[in-house]
Amino acid sequence: MTEVVHMIDSEVFMAFSTYATIVILKMMLMGPITSYHRLTKKVFSNMEDTALGGPAEDRKKMIRADPDVERVRRCHQNDLENIIPFVVIGLLYALTGPDLSIALLHFRLFVGSRCFHTVAYLLPLPQPSRALAWMVGMVTTFSMAYRVLTTALFL
Amino acid sequence: MTEVVHMIDSEVFMAFSTYATIVILKMMLMGPITSYHRLTKKVFSNMEDTALGGPAEDRKKMIRADPDVERVRRCHQNDLENIIPFVVIGLLYALTGPDLSIALLHFRLFVGSRCFHTVAYLLPLPQPSRALAWMVGMVTTFSMAYRVLTTALFL
Amino acid sequence: MTEVVHMIDSEVFMAFSTYATIVILKMMLMGPITSYHRLTKKVFSNMEDTALGGPAEDRKKMIRADPDVERVRRCHQNDLENIIPFVVIGLLYALTGPDLSIALLHFRLFVGSRCFHTVAYLLPLPQPSRALAWMVGMVTTFSMAYRVLTTALFL
Repeated sequence: MTEVVHMIDSEVFMAFSTYATIVILKMMLMGPITSYHRLTKKVFSNMEDTALGGPAEDRKKMIRADPDVERVRRCHQNDLENIIPFVVIGLLYALTGPDLSIALLHFRLFVGSRCFHTVAYLLPLPQPSRALAWMVGMVTTFSMAYRVLTTALFL
Repeated sequence: MTEVVHMIDSEVFMAFSTYATIVILKMMLMGPITSYHRLTKKVFSNMEDTALGGPAEDRKKMIRADPDVERVRRCHQNDLENIIPFVVIGLLYALTGPDLSIALLHFRLFVGSRCFHTVAYLLPLPQPSRALAWMVGMVTTFSMAYRVLTTALFL
Repeated sequence: MTEVVHMIDSEVFMAFSTYATIVILKMMLMGPITSYHRLTKKVFSNMEDTALGGPAEDRKKMIRADPDVERVRRCHQNDLENIIPFVVIGLLYALTGPDLSIALLHFRLFVGSRCFHTVAYLLPLPQPSRALAWMVGMVTTFSMAYRVLTTALFL
């Protein structure tokens, strides 16, 4: 991890910035998709939100769980559990000064696998398509974590 | 993204550090608020936690869902889904060397909107106050992501 | 926060990279543990996932909540709510140039408390063991946030 400072100015760091931003934006998209289902199907979690569902005779009926809403929320939760570790470990990985081609391979594999994961979750595609997408993301992150630990290990 | 190294030492990065820390502390506050409701109303998710509720004849009754606890938890979840993207994209944004005044506008708008979001969620305030606060936070983050992608794009 | 640039190359930053990676890997481990319980007990949230449970007469029965699965998921959620703030504030803290010994104390206390928290949650150990582990992690993060704010305050 010597000369890390120069690494921040490098193409690897710019590549990380690009892919991290793309995959975070993909994760943020889950919020509006949840809202879309809530508003079109009139399904809410809070009593005050039912006002967004327009006039209705019985607002209490809008407080319920809906399969589509719950599916998007599970997808969002899985994103939080996987994309945030990628961003943290990917940032530290980019600072270890890896080869650009190997770093790009990691970033592209991860972002591609998570985009496919979202498609597989929301359509849904038959298993094990989603399970494999999840596994590719995990392995990519573990591989970067391995390099961080072997480069920067300081206990 | 040239001369990024010098950016870390800048006022923009110090401003980011300050606002990111404040908004993360706000998010962490949701944990103790959840605990407060759990302990005062004796509502728990785990059997072993009921010991914290003091002596009781029927501990199984303490394992239940409570509207107040669930409301704080939804607010906490919304924070995770929105504040973490802000922190990640805000860090990369601060490294692109934006004007201090424009950066401060982004950071203040985001932190202000999320503080208002929490108040609107917990009181609660009538909609669309919370929806608007959420939207301001989203737009602020998207605006920073746009600058990161146009400055650092490397696919 | 002057001369922050040189801090990235320092032993404190290497120590942060190491402990942040370890505690993120610990958090990621919750995913496979959830999958293990889902596959061995045949408990799923999505209809398409029941195909992973092998042939069965009634697949709808596999769509249910299981206490073991829910316990691991709550532990995972608590990790998200606590480990991510540590990583964000820890990164900014490492850039303020603290003494190595004091920084190591913070990082080790946090990572140790979260590993104990997971053990206390999954076994489970009687309370207040888990509550204390959670509190140690909170105090450690607050202590680092205090240094970040007193060093970098820029409102």
